[in-house]
Amino acid sequence: MSRPTKQSPERGNARIRLLESARDIVRAKGFAATTVDDLCRSADVTKGAFFHHFESKDALGVAAAEFWTEKTSAFFAAAPYHDLADPLERVLGYVAFRKAIIEGDLAAFTCLVGTMAQEVYASSQGIREACGRSIFGHAETLEADIEAARRERGITGDWTAQSLARHTQAILQGGFVLAKAGNDPALAREALDHLARYIRQLFHVTEETIA
Amino acid sequence: MSRPTKQSPERGNARIRLLESARDIVRAKGFAATTVDDLCRSADVTKGAFFHHFESKDALGVAAAEFWTEKTSAFFAAAPYHDLADPLERVLGYVAFRKAIIEGDLAAFTCLVGTMAQEVYASSQGIREACGRSIFGHAETLEADIEAARRERGITGDWTAQSLARHTQAILQGGFVLAKAGNDPALAREALDHLARYIRQLFHVTEETIA
Repeated sequence: MSRPTKQSPERGNARIRLLESARDIVRAKGFAATTVDDLCRSADVTKGAFFHHFESKDALGVAAAEFWTEKTSAFFAAAPYHDLADPLERVLGYVAFRKAIIEGDLAAFTCLVGTMAQEVYASSQGIREACGRSIFGHAETLEADIEAARRERGITGDWTAQSLARHTQAILQGGFVLAKAGNDPALAREALDHLARYIRQLFHVTEETIA
Repeated sequence: MSRPTKQSPERGNARIRLLESARDIVRAKGFAATTVDDLCRSADVTKGAFFHHFESKDALGVAAAEFWTEKTSAFFAAAPYHDLADPLERVLGYVAFRKAIIEGDLAAFTCLVGTMAQEVYASSQGIREACGRSIFGHAETLEADIEAARRERGITGDWTAQSLARHTQAILQGGFVLAKAGNDPALAREALDHLARYIRQLFHVTEETIA
């Protein structure tokens, strides 16, 4: 509180509260339907404070995507699948972890940046690019393990680690769309079961050999 | 023109023009960002005509999803993959057909009902349900071929035809999200390459045996 800073603690908190409100409200009703008033009310800040922190709603959208990247990166970096010794177990552990956290309210487990990219890809280049960096940056965190698993197990094939890493994200994003359309989180979990089966097949292992 | 009908040709055309405008504009910028004025301008109808045909924007959304279902059902029913003799070839032919039609503008090949479900799943139950009927109804059109292929080839496994049919739609929807986030249709085609590889693995066939 007494650190020499140009930004007061209150002001810093207002920004974070606005980003957290964006994360929650946009996932519940989409970016276009989320108004600046919605965000101010939820974050308990004035409109003046909003425009002090973000020059426009689009700027808030970009910052919300970046905030999402920052928070989810830390969350997945700390997840237990990284501790597994075998790189293929780490890859399958990632898929199992993604499945395990799909529960409860759709707005609580679905993806902010997938939702925003779906909606504003053509109308806000800045938001689209921030969403792309988030999704493809997250996919990249899987590449080293997939490549190591391929090398260790002598797997060849007409696919790359980069492409399979991206595919895990396509299946997650598509699973979220189906879960929303069918109003049932089990539809997203089912997609991840298919993904785990696909990866086991690519690496010629069964559920008995590697869980 | 002279058929006895309660609806004038002009009036019928206005409704269709509004539904076609919704199909195109919602895919380009999302449902919430699409205003009734946008739709009227694009369809060249008055606001009075809009509300003559649709009692609300949500009612237009439901009708647009149903119009989408009707048009895409006819389009896929007439597609060439149905003519293949082998049910597995028909399933893989479907995937190849979906890949072949992914080209050009993102708004032209992405999915109206996936986009709307993503956005309004929690705010409009009517639209969500119409989108769900569209996506899961389309998935159902694949089930008989998948089941026939399983039976003919004696394939067992802990997956069902219904589940694999749904998974094709998860991969399509997720591929569209990645194509939008990365501004590149090739990202959606890549997801379908993984899907074709997965299906071949499930049925123990290679690209050489079945194209």
